[in-house]
Parts: sequence; structure tokens; C-alpha cells
Amino acid sequence: MKEEVKLTKYNKNNDYSYTFGIFPTFELVKNRAERVIKIILSSKLKISEDVKNLLGLCERKNIKIEYDDRVINRVADKENCFVVGVFEKYETNFDICEKNLVLYNPSDMGNMGTIMRTMLGFGINNLIIINPAVDHFNPKVIRASMGAIFSLNILEFDSIGSYLERSKNKKYFFMLKGNNILGKFEIKDKKYDLIFGNEASGLPENLLNYDESVVIKHTNKIDSLNLPISIGIALYEFTKN
Amino acid sequence: MKEEVKLTKYNKNNDYSYTFGIFPTFELVKNRAERVIKIILSSKLKISEDVKNLLGLCERKNIKIEYDDRVINRVADKENCFVVGVFEKYETNFDICEKNLVLYNPSDMGNMGTIMRTMLGFGINNLIIINPAVDHFNPKVIRASMGAIFSLNILEFDSIGSYLERSKNKKYFFMLKGNNILGKFEIKDKKYDLIFGNEASGLPENLLNYDESVVIKHTNKIDSLNLPISIGIALYEFTKN
Repeated sequence: MKEEVKLTKYNKNNDYSYTFGIFPTFELVKNRAERVIKIILSSKLKISEDVKNLLGLCERKNIKIEYDDRVINRVADKENCFVVGVFEKYETNFDICEKNLVLYNPSDMGNMGTIMRTMLGFGINNLIIINPAVDHFNPKVIRASMGAIFSLNILEFDSIGSYLERSKNKKYFFMLKGNNILGKFEIKDKKYDLIFGNEASGLPENLLNYDESVVIKHTNKIDSLNLPISIGIALYEFTKN
Repeated sequence: MKEEVKLTKYNKNNDYSYTFGIFPTFELVKNRAERVIKIILSSKLKISEDVKNLLGLCERKNIKIEYDDRVINRVADKENCFVVGVFEKYETNFDICEKNLVLYNPSDMGNMGTIMRTMLGFGINNLIIINPAVDHFNPKVIRASMGAIFSLNILEFDSIGSYLERSKNKKYFFMLKGNNILGKFEIKDKKYDLIFGNEASGLPENLLNYDESVVIKHTNKIDSLNLPISIGIALYEFTKN
């Protein structure tokens, strides 16, 4: 992105995105300083301890700070946003043979952010996204992740096939018809992929016997658990020992 | 509520509320028929299998059905709502000495609905709410619960004190400083209360040693797990055997 570009409301086709608010902006600067284009402050910003910490961090990392109410009003998605981070989108390379969470066609931005935060909470830092999927750099995802996105490694695949070709890990496919009940089998693997399907349609049925399939048992009073909760339970169970 | 009352947008002070959409309306009629005032249909409604099922159920349960686009446009919170259920708010009495989920000052309507649905998924059907709290009959809660609210028993208390006085169950208070790590102690009790605090501020510190306090271990990379995920994990662990 050229600096002279006029910043506009977020658009997934742009090669830059935004953080709104102090907390996610702090996480951005702390974890991805090399991607930060600049930090924009509102003239209404009150200088709290948190703000001082952010400004100090920006200074140490040599990051440009500007006051610009007009730009904030133009790009922020809510009122009362006093801090905006502008950053270049990026890809992260990582060793895909460690532990991964794999999301197949995730379609809800709030869910994606919540899942990112939960991953970080359970020490699973590698996220594989199989497209089509929501745009993970949308500010709504970043907001829901509370900045956790900047601590994660993220890799996208165009199809489940190209992912399966590439990953050699033990694979657990979470499916309502899964052959194994979570909590009733021993988890011996040190490295594994936990794979979850789309919110509405789940995973393709032909994956049921590809490697291991797992179900989280629930009553027949509901169709399924919601996706972030299923993932939270799986991450808890797989990492608890 | 008198039938002649002009139905208006949802207001927590009214003694009636709404379900929007076929699925939660079906759950309402199925589980709380005696509270239903009427079902309102849009002239744009297409008669699908689901609609036929709903209409058949209403007929068997002797529930009034009206077509009224004006009322739907006035009360519905979104466009493309073709079915509205109108029902009297109600209280449910239940044996509070069984298994309960207790929410202290819950403040997010989407969370509350998600939690209701998750409870139903793990067979914990008694919900105790300690006020102040979000209005659990707000249509946003009902929508997020996907109608699960109509299968739950719900009791409100004015304060944590009045709840503690009343409940004799073994109590597990979920707190970041909890003395017991979830998954590392044996759950012997057949009856218990699982108690969770407000999304932002948690439970009052003085409850730490009241009975048992529990922490769900997570990394120090996040401040806390989100509330519905913590509850999902706890319900999973407490009901899995």
C-alpha cells in the first residue's frame, strides 16, 4: 500500500485492514509491528495508562502516529472509536506438521474471532482455513478475536483436497456421525489436526472414515452445538493433560 | 394481556414477547402452548413442510392464527420475517435441588441464548438467573437460543444472597482464581449448581472459598475464555460420564 492512498471503509480487496480500539491495536503493534502502516488517534482520545503503554510501544517500534479525526470518522465502523491501527495484510508461514485447528468453510465473522481467541487460550496457535471462508482480516473478525489474530499463524487452502495432500498429521474430523466419542478415547498423538466444518452444513460426509472422526455427545434436544463451543470443548479435551 | 392491545415493538415492561421465524415459533408452540396468545403470518409466507408442521401443531393445540402484514412489519426486528409468535411471559417452578446452571448478572443477550441452547444440549434444563441481568424474554435472546428457552426452567433471584439462602446443592463457583482445576478432580455429586459470573467482572471474590471454586486452565495469552465457551466446557466435563 502506498502511503498516499486515501483510506476508505474496509474492503476485502484492499491489501490493508484496520484495528479499532486500544486493545486490538496494542496486540497488533506488539505482535506484528513490521506490518503496521500507522496508528491514527482521535482528538477526543483521553490519555489513560493503556494509551500511554500503546504510545510508548509505538515509539520503541518506530511506528508512525497521527491525529486525524476525519479519517477515523470515515473508516471506523462504530462511534466512540478513538484509536485505529492501519496495517498491511500478511501471510504467515509455519510448520504445518505441529498442532493445527482446521476450519472448513467458516462463514461467521464473530465465530471466527471467538475461535481465534479460544485457540490462543489453549495454546493451539496454528489456524488452517479452507476456502471459501469469511475474510479473516475483516475488522469484525479482529474485534471478536480481541487481537488474538495477531498471535496466530494462519494458512489458507483453496480446497479440502489440497489441504489433505499437504498435511501429514493425524486428523480428527469433528462430525455429528463421528465414530469416536470425545472423552472416551485416549489421545496419544503429540501432533494432530482438529478439523471442523461449516456452521450450517458441517464437513463433507466422505471424510467420516478418512482418518478418525469424532462426535461431541449431546442430547437430541438440539441439532448441534454451536461451532465455537464445540471447538472450545475439543481444545480443552485435547490439551488438558 | 388483553387481546385488543395494539402490539408494539418489544418492550421489556410488556407482559408479552415474540418469537420471530418458524423454528423458534415451533418450539414455543410445542413446549409452551398454554402461553401462546396467537401466531401471526405474513402474506408472503410460502407453505413449506416446516410451515405445514407448525400450522398442524397450532391446530391440534387450538392456537389462533392470523394473517397480518402490518403487525409483522411493526413488531419484527428484521425484514424477511414471515412468522411471529406472540406469547405471555411466564415463570417456571422447578425443584431447585436438581442440577442447575446459575448465571450471576449476565449482560449479553446473544450469550444468554447460546448458553440456553448449550444447556439443553447437555441435559441441564434448570437455569437460575441472579439479577441484575439481561431480560431473558427479549426476542434477541430467544433467537440466539433457537427456541431452547421454551424447554428450560428459569428462576430469577434478586441477589446472590437470596439464591445462596435458598439452594442447598453442592456449589461450584467458576472463577479465574479457582482452587480446583476442571478435569483434575472427581465429580461425585449427582446434584450440583454450576455458577458463572458476569462477562466482564466475573463472580464476587468472596465466593472463592464459599464451597468449591473451579478454574478452567488456559494460557496467559488471554485474560479469560468467553462465557458461553467456559460454560460449554464445564457442562461437557460435568455430564460426560
